[in-house]
Amino acid sequence: MTSSTAQVDPTAAPPQEDQWLVRAVNLALRNVTAGGGPFGAVVVRGGVAVGTGQNRVTRDHDPTAHAEVMAIRDACGRLGVFSLAGACLYSSCEPCPLCLTAALWARLDRVVYAANRNDAARAGFDDRAFYDLLRRDRAAWPMPVVERRIACAEAPIEAWLAYSARVEY
Amino acid sequence: MTSSTAQVDPTAAPPQEDQWLVRAVNLALRNVTAGGGPFGAVVVRGGVAVGTGQNRVTRDHDPTAHAEVMAIRDACGRLGVFSLAGACLYSSCEPCPLCLTAALWARLDRVVYAANRNDAARAGFDDRAFYDLLRRDRAAWPMPVVERRIACAEAPIEAWLAYSARVEY
Repeated sequence: MTSSTAQVDPTAAPPQEDQWLVRAVNLALRNVTAGGGPFGAVVVRGGVAVGTGQNRVTRDHDPTAHAEVMAIRDACGRLGVFSLAGACLYSSCEPCPLCLTAALWARLDRVVYAANRNDAARAGFDDRAFYDLLRRDRAAWPMPVVERRIACAEAPIEAWLAYSARVEY
Repeated sequence: MTSSTAQVDPTAAPPQEDQWLVRAVNLALRNVTAGGGPFGAVVVRGGVAVGTGQNRVTRDHDPTAHAEVMAIRDACGRLGVFSLAGACLYSSCEPCPLCLTAALWARLDRVVYAANRNDAARAGFDDRAFYDLLRRDRAAWPMPVVERRIACAEAPIEAWLAYSARVEY
């Protein structure tokens, strides 16, 4: 039987996930005339949307207010958690490195996106440029990133390890 | 003259920058018993601190509330801007990929840090693990990141390009 021997891509999104992508795209579309960038995102857990986000960088004066970050903040705030393990993130566009790392810190199970970094670049956004920059040695970056190991550099780490009531994440 | 021929590292932090690093470290230290991770950051422009941040991930239920992100949000909020061009970020510890990309989006001139990703790893944090993951092909990630180009994928980008009143960043 052909169907039983067909290759299945374990990372492919099942068709029912498209509804969440469409919702993210609609959030992005509505955001264009609402003073934000053309990006939207939804966090889904157990078949229910538990958080949504729209890009608010210019409107809220927050360079980190990307749609995915806003959706993660919204979901965590509503649920009263700092881990979204068991949840998935649907985004209208490929998460930039900031948003992708936010998804990792949020312990999301899965990320699905519609448009990609090349579409974002066509619209004038630096997502692709920053992905490219992160692959290059920092010594070649236009923004210097400098390590300066002052005498007290390790003090907070030591204090953390000595603090028995610490909440790890 | 030896001094005129000495190599100068253009990325090296001048000694006066140490005062800002010490302030970031003190913010980190104080945060340990205040319910946050051992990380602090300061944004400086024109010799003045214009924003500060402490890690608030567990306390505020926000996986993106890293010290550097909080300092960038604080500075932008106080100044009413979404670009920190001309400003520098001082952090008690090497920014993770989320924070480093936040610094890029914020158009910061320069980033200086004291402890590094190895110190953070010793304290149980995943900064180094996520840097390592970002170097690997996504197909090998434990968190699938899936592109699914639905029919309306480009609609927000097209709407953005057609919207003449858009505010670019």
